[in-house]
Amino acid sequence: MTLQSSAPSPDWTPFVHRRDIFWGDTDPAKIAYTGRFSDFLLEAIESFYRDRLGTDWYAITMDEDLGTPFVHMEFDFKSPVTPREPLAITVMVARSGRSSVDYRLVARGANSGVIRFTAAATNVWVRQSAMKAISIPEKYRVVIEREAEMAAALTKPA
Amino acid sequence: MTLQSSAPSPDWTPFVHRRDIFWGDTDPAKIAYTGRFSDFLLEAIESFYRDRLGTDWYAITMDEDLGTPFVHMEFDFKSPVTPREPLAITVMVARSGRSSVDYRLVARGANSGVIRFTAAATNVWVRQSAMKAISIPEKYRVVIEREAEMAAALTKPA
Amino acid sequence: MTLQSSAPSPDWTPFVHRRDIFWGDTDPAKIAYTGRFSDFLLEAIESFYRDRLGTDWYAITMDEDLGTPFVHMEFDFKSPVTPREPLAITVMVARSGRSSVDYRLVARGANSGVIRFTAAATNVWVRQSAMKAISIPEKYRVVIEREAEMAAALTKPA
Amino acid sequence: MTLQSSAPSPDWTPFVHRRDIFWGDTDPAKIAYTGRFSDFLLEAIESFYRDRLGTDWYAITMDEDLGTPFVHMEFDFKSPVTPREPLAITVMVARSGRSSVDYRLVARGANSGVIRFTAAATNVWVRQSAMKAISIPEKYRVVIEREAEMAAALTKPA
Repeated sequence: MTLQSSAPSPDWTPFVHRRDIFWGDTDPAKIAYTGRFSDFLLEAIESFYRDRLGTDWYAITMDEDLGTPFVHMEFDFKSPVTPREPLAITVMVARSGRSSVDYRLVARGANSGVIRFTAAATNVWVRQSAMKAISIPEKYRVVIEREAEMAAALTKPA
Repeated sequence: MTLQSSAPSPDWTPFVHRRDIFWGDTDPAKIAYTGRFSDFLLEAIESFYRDRLGTDWYAITMDEDLGTPFVHMEFDFKSPVTPREPLAITVMVARSGRSSVDYRLVARGANSGVIRFTAAATNVWVRQSAMKAISIPEKYRVVIEREAEMAAALTKPA
Repeated sequence: MTLQSSAPSPDWTPFVHRRDIFWGDTDPAKIAYTGRFSDFLLEAIESFYRDRLGTDWYAITMDEDLGTPFVHMEFDFKSPVTPREPLAITVMVARSGRSSVDYRLVARGANSGVIRFTAAATNVWVRQSAMKAISIPEKYRVVIEREAEMAAALTKPA
Repeated sequence: MTLQSSAPSPDWTPFVHRRDIFWGDTDPAKIAYTGRFSDFLLEAIESFYRDRLGTDWYAITMDEDLGTPFVHMEFDFKSPVTPREPLAITVMVARSGRSSVDYRLVARGANSGVIRFTAAATNVWVRQSAMKAISIPEKYRVVIEREAEMAAALTKPA
């Protein structure tokens, strides 16, 4: 990964996944159920694949015999999520390795900007039929590395 | 309900809920899991509430002590749903009663137009704290009855 | 299907699936969310496969290239389900055809016996790789037909 | 918390939650979907409440105006989960604070004993109506502290 720039490219902004919150996401405490946040995270990362990599988990599995199973996932819950306000979930690449990618997510109220949760996740590129780790295919690697570079520039102190 | 018109108003179109399909919606048969279709149906009807009634199930519960629990729900599965194509789910009011409302849904591939499933559901307006059926509140009743009238005109033979 | 007996065999009882209800099944109306009932139904029918057919949907797919996708599913909700009481869901075969099977379910409170919901569902036996309907394989057909016969005897007026 | 013993009491074993895996838990990679593991974790911890504390999340909310929302949850995925084998999820208290409790989970194949995932989670006792942290009520605190003590003795080197 080359790090020639110290600021994100002016034509780059991090991917943000908007998610409406429904009645079915909530529990008798009148807030989104803890078990739903992994769906929020996974839908956000799969939408990142669609927006940035031009594919999704179904397409890489069916068309390319690839998969990206997760090896780690974590959440810090900061403030309650309710159907009153959609989520705006920013997805950034924190690190791009040979086979694995670390994601960092910040979910805010789409209108208020208040942080609802932060999360991190790591997945590994595999040959699906063999469930064996592989180097990230070139066409995806270049995009993921640029995302990592831009995200690093964005979060780096001036 | 008055049925003065024999055609839907030119300024009316039925509500259509668009739903992206994710990896997490699918099963090892490589199609959307049967258990996910009730989520598709409920998200579509709740989105109808947001679009047509200007509220949602959380808001009527928390702010108005109202609820609309379902008493019936049914599905006919017509063709496989996959992440290759989002759903476009049309929600129409098939009948508006004193307390209860019958919905009729047709879900098509958003691009192909191919019918994926049809569904019907009935819910009942209740005072939430008492779980007792009530007449549909006037402000919602007038909208629901117009939806029923327009839907009837749309589906009536010429 | 032979119908020699007019009463269920003394060594037969219908399959009953017990299901604990968790916090995550419930919504802010303090009852199980409508969208969860299709999970209750599908877990009950899959448990019937395990108990009566000695297999499950994963095994028939992976080991036998078979599948049993659903073509119809319906629910009548009779009384609220809460974590206060598990469900006891009776699964009976209402009809066994060449390729398709109709199921009839009655879900009661496991302790109180009060009916919570009734449901019906139809699935079709297919060659999974071809998604083409086939005759129900003999080893499964004989069991399903006996279940249909016993269920008919059980529900028949004397 | 007193730590008078250096070994777990002979009448204590850690709580283990058994979980059948269903078709609906799996995805086209033919393994349990990443998004389902938070359900596995939460069902296991709620079952711990039922077994050890004699209550559950619904009962403490409805009957005692208490809640235990989660502030952190994390997972390390070790080997694939499939419907071929149920999970046996051990739930232990890693730390008991004034208001908060840290849980540590190890999920193994129920028959093979192979580790499928490990997880950690922290929740906080609150007055539900105020969503304000409180000291863990005495009747629950004594049990949780004993669980922490026994778990520490179990995992301590001799």
